[in-house]
Amino acid sequence: MQRKVMFIILDGVGDRPCTELNGLTPLQKADLPSFDFLATRGMIGRQYPIAPGIPPGSDTAHLSMFGYDISTEYPGRGYFEALGWDIEVEEGCVVFRANLGTVERRGHRLFVKDRRAGRISGKDAESVASAIAEMDLMEGEVRAIFRHTLEHRGILILKGPDLGPEVSDVDPHEEGYPVLEPRPLTASPKAKKTALALKEFVLRSHEILKDLEVNRERTRSDLLPANIVLPRGAASKLPLPSFKEKWGFEAAAIAAGPLYRGIAKSMGMKLLEVEGATGLPTSNFKGKIERGLSALESEFDFVFIHIKAPDVASHMKNPKLKVEVLERIDDALEPLLDLPEEYLLLLTGDHTTPCSLGKHSGDPVPLMISGKGIPEDDAGRFDELRCIRGGLGTVLGKDLMRLVLNYSNRALEYGLRPTSMELPYIPKADQLIPLHIN
Amino acid sequence: MQRKVMFIILDGVGDRPCTELNGLTPLQKADLPSFDFLATRGMIGRQYPIAPGIPPGSDTAHLSMFGYDISTEYPGRGYFEALGWDIEVEEGCVVFRANLGTVERRGHRLFVKDRRAGRISGKDAESVASAIAEMDLMEGEVRAIFRHTLEHRGILILKGPDLGPEVSDVDPHEEGYPVLEPRPLTASPKAKKTALALKEFVLRSHEILKDLEVNRERTRSDLLPANIVLPRGAASKLPLPSFKEKWGFEAAAIAAGPLYRGIAKSMGMKLLEVEGATGLPTSNFKGKIERGLSALESEFDFVFIHIKAPDVASHMKNPKLKVEVLERIDDALEPLLDLPEEYLLLLTGDHTTPCSLGKHSGDPVPLMISGKGIPEDDAGRFDELRCIRGGLGTVLGKDLMRLVLNYSNRALEYGLRPTSMELPYIPKADQLIPLHIN
Repeated sequence: MQRKVMFIILDGVGDRPCTELNGLTPLQKADLPSFDFLATRGMIGRQYPIAPGIPPGSDTAHLSMFGYDISTEYPGRGYFEALGWDIEVEEGCVVFRANLGTVERRGHRLFVKDRRAGRISGKDAESVASAIAEMDLMEGEVRAIFRHTLEHRGILILKGPDLGPEVSDVDPHEEGYPVLEPRPLTASPKAKKTALALKEFVLRSHEILKDLEVNRERTRSDLLPANIVLPRGAASKLPLPSFKEKWGFEAAAIAAGPLYRGIAKSMGMKLLEVEGATGLPTSNFKGKIERGLSALESEFDFVFIHIKAPDVASHMKNPKLKVEVLERIDDALEPLLDLPEEYLLLLTGDHTTPCSLGKHSGDPVPLMISGKGIPEDDAGRFDELRCIRGGLGTVLGKDLMRLVLNYSNRALEYGLRPTSMELPYIPKADQLIPLHIN
Repeated sequence: MQRKVMFIILDGVGDRPCTELNGLTPLQKADLPSFDFLATRGMIGRQYPIAPGIPPGSDTAHLSMFGYDISTEYPGRGYFEALGWDIEVEEGCVVFRANLGTVERRGHRLFVKDRRAGRISGKDAESVASAIAEMDLMEGEVRAIFRHTLEHRGILILKGPDLGPEVSDVDPHEEGYPVLEPRPLTASPKAKKTALALKEFVLRSHEILKDLEVNRERTRSDLLPANIVLPRGAASKLPLPSFKEKWGFEAAAIAAGPLYRGIAKSMGMKLLEVEGATGLPTSNFKGKIERGLSALESEFDFVFIHIKAPDVASHMKNPKLKVEVLERIDDALEPLLDLPEEYLLLLTGDHTTPCSLGKHSGDPVPLMISGKGIPEDDAGRFDELRCIRGGLGTVLGKDLMRLVLNYSNRALEYGLRPTSMELPYIPKADQLIPLHIN
């Protein structure tokens, strides 16, 4: 019997010991009866989404875990963000993920005080974004379009002839560091032109935003002003082979964050909507799990559920919030406790985000594969310590889909087809023609 | 002191929990005092013959465990089968592994009812095979030769000008599926011609077999008729570097199944015969182990012993038979319990074959390296659960021979020879020229 698969990513779920939790990690501190039960009905272990010690980006981590080769199948982060907001990336455009941030001027430099402008959102974010929504650059040769998406996030598109994605990030990725000059990463004239256009956009948008009324008002209210746009992850259009083509599943995705929606779309997964799913710690976790189950009861045999909240708590360096979030997720997992044998659950994160660091780390990420009839280990509950001894051992992100195929009883024997020695071994429909008898 | 090595493959030894065994695996259920003792005098662990989650084919698994690179050193399954039966594969021939199977016609398709025709054997199998032993195809341009080997197994050779191995399998590898049309896997005229010849052979042999007297008789006796030949694993001649050249051992092999005999021969191992060794659950396990020991006492320092029976029980979905087989193998291992320090034992499988699936899976395979003076772990007995915690950890098939060299005290330090940084580090005779003094 081929199993249906629920693939749950708890963004940033792993952690390091937290002083606020008396040296425990949030997974160790939290009361997680559903996680505990699921762990006993299967195996736990750990995975490095990219490789040991490498802090994964959210996009590369997901691609790698879904079995894509990030050395050749990675268009850049901006591409996924744009897709996630139904913004078409035209051939020749360059698209960036871009935060609204807060900077302070010191001499001739701008230092990043907050990469998220105090997690600006709602009307304030809209007002800021509308002030820089469209702009002509390079004497009219290049058009910049900025679109606000969720909270402090947005995307920036540069349109015009002879542009390319080989430019470095403006966002220094660390608070306290200066905003960076975008540099061409190759010798091509396209890269040079794109870097110049991007620099002009960043300087002009700072000029506009620093004196904007909404930012003055925020400063008066002791809120951080959104006085800069910090672009990163330059990308251009790169169509990926579909998830179905790679692994044979009819897949759906449930995710609120634009990046994750975009990743799902880029793989041809069908996006399903859930009321109250926001990507925030208050998101509707229960609704997501229930929607995932109903999807598996209808036409889908694979559902990817992305839950952003643990990562948000970690980035806020708030382990107690992370414990709360995990306990609410645990409640939401209850409907999974008594699933019949035709269901397989994979539960992991896209990276570890230690609250003590407030950013992604290269630590291993707890992993669980659970379901009725799955071989069981005796490693115990789902936390960083117990997972060391789990039956799944320590694997790489790129191994996950092969393990999913194996434990959902869908894997084909290696070497069956002489010229298809590469992985994976999904026979394409046109390879399986029944012999015709007259 | 360099140790001599006994390398025992228990085909399909690993398993998943079996409901017939109250949720235990056959290794957990069986009473295995010899295994248990050997496990305490060394280390246990697990290995993925190919990679995590990939169900290995028997041939690719063995090649990988013997340190061959299956991406470049894999001629196709049929090559090993033919070698195993002393059938010379001439340059330009295409050779297939081919089961006698049972199909049912529905409309213009043939559906596979049993891929092994009820494990047909003996006189029945001989009669069936002799009816299709030789055939002219493609108006006399291609000659087909079918040779029966063991039980339901045989090999098919296509001889003639302009043939090549790039054709897909006729065997769908799953019961209930239609027999497949062989397709050329490249655009070459050779592939196209071979696919046409193969199709003609399959159709004509079905015509002959469906009305054969022995099959009518089998149907009357409620036995499945062998009314089709299901070829797979197209191959052509590909000489491999010898095992001695790769690893420096004088190696012998003890195996009954033609595939394993062929693999041994392809690596230049000397085949040793044992009376009553059949590849069946009733095979003479004791004789094989004793013959292996006597080989190591004479001119060989490496012996590969292949025991097929656990896999046969698993393919029959019979966990109780697997338990019996394992207990009989355990008896046969008794002479190994008190070997002196100059012996090293490696014991593993070529894949896990869960009885619940009845076919190979991509689960890890239990592994043991044992011998006097070998570092010991405290993981306990040799089963799927204990092996998770074993001192060998979880390794890949391609790591095994390096571990063998290491624990047999034969491994050379990495980088010793500036120009031979690749593995293995076996100095070739012509690299060791004594300095000549006048």
